Amino acid sequence: MDYSQRSLEMHRKMRGKLEIQPTVPLDTRDDLATAYTPGVAQPCLEIAKDKNLVWDLTIKGHSVAVVTDGSAVLGLGNIGAEAALPVMEGKAILFKKFGGIDAYPICLATQDVEKIVETVKLIAPGFGGINLEDISAPRCFEVERRLIEELDIPVMHDDQHGTAVVVTAGLTNALKVVGKKIEDVSVVISGAGAGGMGVANLLLVAGVRHMTMLDSKGIIAVGREGMNVYKDEIATRINPNARTGTLADALRGADVFIGVSQPGIVTGDMVRSMAKGAIIFAMANPVPEIMPDEALAAGAAIVATGRSDFQNQVNNVLAFPGIFKGALEGRLRKITPTMRFAAAKALAGMVVEPTAEKILPSPLDPGVADVVSGAVKNSM
Amino acid sequence: MDYSQRSLEMHRKMRGKLEIQPTVPLDTRDDLATAYTPGVAQPCLEIAKDKNLVWDLTIKGHSVAVVTDGSAVLGLGNIGAEAALPVMEGKAILFKKFGGIDAYPICLATQDVEKIVETVKLIAPGFGGINLEDISAPRCFEVERRLIEELDIPVMHDDQHGTAVVVTAGLTNALKVVGKKIEDVSVVISGAGAGGMGVANLLLVAGVRHMTMLDSKGIIAVGREGMNVYKDEIATRINPNARTGTLADALRGADVFIGVSQPGIVTGDMVRSMAKGAIIFAMANPVPEIMPDEALAAGAAIVATGRSDFQNQVNNVLAFPGIFKGALEGRLRKITPTMRFAAAKALAGMVVEPTAEKILPSPLDPGVADVVSGAVKNSM
Repeated sequence: MDYSQRSLEMHRKMRGKLEIQPTVPLDTRDDLATAYTPGVAQPCLEIAKDKNLVWDLTIKGHSVAVVTDGSAVLGLGNIGAEAALPVMEGKAILFKKFGGIDAYPICLATQDVEKIVETVKLIAPGFGGINLEDISAPRCFEVERRLIEELDIPVMHDDQHGTAVVVTAGLTNALKVVGKKIEDVSVVISGAGAGGMGVANLLLVAGVRHMTMLDSKGIIAVGREGMNVYKDEIATRINPNARTGTLADALRGADVFIGVSQPGIVTGDMVRSMAKGAIIFAMANPVPEIMPDEALAAGAAIVATGRSDFQNQVNNVLAFPGIFKGALEGRLRKITPTMRFAAAKALAGMVVEPTAEKILPSPLDPGVADVVSGAVKNSM
Repeated sequence: MDYSQRSLEMHRKMRGKLEIQPTVPLDTRDDLATAYTPGVAQPCLEIAKDKNLVWDLTIKGHSVAVVTDGSAVLGLGNIGAEAALPVMEGKAILFKKFGGIDAYPICLATQDVEKIVETVKLIAPGFGGINLEDISAPRCFEVERRLIEELDIPVMHDDQHGTAVVVTAGLTNALKVVGKKIEDVSVVISGAGAGGMGVANLLLVAGVRHMTMLDSKGIIAVGREGMNVYKDEIATRINPNARTGTLADALRGADVFIGVSQPGIVTGDMVRSMAKGAIIFAMANPVPEIMPDEALAAGAAIVATGRSDFQNQVNNVLAFPGIFKGALEGRLRKITPTMRFAAAKALAGMVVEPTAEKILPSPLDPGVADVVSGAVKNSM
């Protein structure tokens, strides 16, 4: 099916994808006097007396701002605030559909870290959480760190952490299928942007001990050209001997490949050089690092991609609605790595008997967000 | 009825008053692939090529941000961003109910003019218009002026202009009832904040030639204490001889009183001192400048208030949904005084035979927003 054309037509016909609906009646003078003046003064006064009541008496307790600067939208790159809006609207309606959360897209006319942080802080009073989206690396790391520090509501950059939770869940089940332990496997991550960093950090929490990370210039290592403070930080942890090399070097004998990078960069020969029972997460969009049939033909035991037209889709929608639902219901001020790991384990647990063809639940399975939100709340 | 208690209970039960709803299906993998990835890339690319398409392919073309800093909320004063949220939610759902516009409340954690302007500019890409709300005078004038100059979408401070449009409509019909011409009457405006300034400016456009304006210190006049640049500006136009005096002085012989000020400041004696066929707009909230029965007993011909429990309610909801609807449908970059005067005339025209008890349509009358939006679009 031509989703592109169909999507364009739908957006034109519906003028986007969301609307605001009153949840209270507005049909009579009494209705207006209750929902608006003079009645509305009472909830205002209650909140003025005790600011915490804003969580109970307004949308704040069930709302999230989906914030972008349009700098790294899907695989399309820096297309700007306006062109990012269809993606943010999509995210917003997925929040509602799967998490019961009322999310509104906020597209910022700046790509300056300081201004993004300041603007989000200034609009925060009316929101219960902030979902950062499609902000390019490495700026996204500082934006998220600053907002987590400076705001008292949960802030999460989904490109990092949503991806990480679903990959960690999928890898947990994939390792079960091939009969390996997470402490023993060697994991190769291709991509040191938002997705790669998020995945690497959560897999370290999950217990991975042997990890190699690459960017477009090869294995990241302190002192190599093209590094930045974030790459240095993780390279210090996972590559203390500053080993360098290519993707082919890194994959030789590896158990797991996780790609959040570029289409077509993994060859059949590279897969053949991996250990027996190789697990491939090829999540470049829209074209994976290696196509599933080619990876399987080269001996991979399990293949996952970001696409809905292949088995084992790694889809962030498995994670973000439930994570924010849990954070909002639990009134959590921060979403921690412990919570995200709990979410990943809970997601993995939804597949009772994982197989090579089924390592993750479907976003359309009932109860996904409830399982994830429960795990997040109970991980405190 | 105790609207206060009822409103509080409703807000607690419903956790505010609005929700975000998808307008497209999300029930199957095909649905997800159309509304979100991979399909959503296509509308993004179209907008990246031609930024104007954001009006056709997203919520922008039918959305308004309801922005406040919480500094002058209802009659409650400076209660802050969080406590203002119930009012902004109310405004948002009135936009939807009466104008078909999707409006979202944005409550700012700052009362600094520069920061308000900057923040609104930075979040503007996703909105089709900006409704400023409950920002205290005189800061509200600069915030509005700056945003009108610096943004390419319509911006309107409703406390000024919504009020002005409805008062001008009501006065037009009231003058018909008492058989006076707008050029001939003398109008006294009590209150030189947002509402007073908005009313004064639009009545000058409407043809009023004799106008006196007062603040809490008496008649405004250049050189008097307690003036500011905005009061000076209008005093120069309407009070060139710098006449001073009290409210009682101003009302003696006047035809029209318009109060957007303080409860109970107009006495029966003051009304008795006015010209025959006196018209009283006593819009202080929640208690008017003079109660309707007292004003009528003192000889007033027509009384209007801001309250829904008396006849002739001056309710901004008669104006703002239609004004923004017209501005969005007409892709107008600014909302001008000419458009607002056209809106007022159209509103007045909806009451075919005005009487002392009926000078304005009801917000619940069908078609109000369409009449207003049509007038706005056609006034270009």
